[in-house]
Amino acid sequence: MDISTKTTAIITPSEILTYWQGHRELTRRVIDAFPEKELFTFSIGGMRSFADLAKELLSMAVPTLEQVVKGKVEAYEEESQNYGTKAEILKAWDEATEQINIYWQQIGEEKFREVFNLYGQYNYPLIQNLYYIIDNEIHHRGQGYVYLRALNIAPPPFWERAPFGEPQ
Amino acid sequence: MDISTKTTAIITPSEILTYWQGHRELTRRVIDAFPEKELFTFSIGGMRSFADLAKELLSMAVPTLEQVVKGKVEAYEEESQNYGTKAEILKAWDEATEQINIYWQQIGEEKFREVFNLYGQYNYPLIQNLYYIIDNEIHHRGQGYVYLRALNIAPPPFWERAPFGEPQ
Repeated sequence: MDISTKTTAIITPSEILTYWQGHRELTRRVIDAFPEKELFTFSIGGMRSFADLAKELLSMAVPTLEQVVKGKVEAYEEESQNYGTKAEILKAWDEATEQINIYWQQIGEEKFREVFNLYGQYNYPLIQNLYYIIDNEIHHRGQGYVYLRALNIAPPPFWERAPFGEPQ
Repeated sequence: MDISTKTTAIITPSEILTYWQGHRELTRRVIDAFPEKELFTFSIGGMRSFADLAKELLSMAVPTLEQVVKGKVEAYEEESQNYGTKAEILKAWDEATEQINIYWQQIGEEKFREVFNLYGQYNYPLIQNLYYIIDNEIHHRGQGYVYLRALNIAPPPFWERAPFGEPQ
């Protein structure tokens, strides 16, 4: 799994963390832009509410890092907690933000390229599973933008995100 | 702009290309899933049609790489061609797929971390501008999924994408 030393590193683990947290900060603002009721009830075309989509994102973020750090493979489980208010979701979001930062520091750089059988189902290099999780968040957040537009609410600009910064 | 040799490369330029083209192949299927008329006319909440969103994606992909390869900074311009049919968009998409592959091979590995003032507006390391373009595609494609669901059409599964593969 070693990368040849002639290969240029174009992104480092700490940049990926900054990139992900930049996306998560925007997703937080999208959650917050929903009116309390519509967050849980509004949907289009039989899709899930944005509260349910946010719950999926929460179910994937910390549990993934926890499995990697603890080296234990467990089946995927949708977050069991039922959030009843926007404030509860935002609180869980903020707690996840901290937990992600803590777990990330416990993942050695060499681990990102190693295959980890996430949830006993996704037997890929960790970095690939992490990209999937980030992409899935962007995908569902984009859907939240349509919900907000349909509710006549202007979503936060997509481009207002912290860039992952200068190389170290 | 050099990365210290102790930093682990967690993703290489050729993997980023595979990752992007994997996303582009899914976006192509989303374009193709729209009925001819609705591709150009359907929208929700005053948003753009998916044809217009696809046009934006086309406007950013090849022109970005072209500016980098040719080392010339020019203002961003929305694709001037007006596509009138789905077949025309898909043809442009496929041509872009090839052009992206060709231009990518002409970008030296060291270029990805260098700052390039894309469109004279986005003065970031190239890799950061490329991530923006990929994220923007995932974001808008997610919106296309809502359009399709609202039209009672099942979109192609989000997870059916080529992984970027084993490390080299």
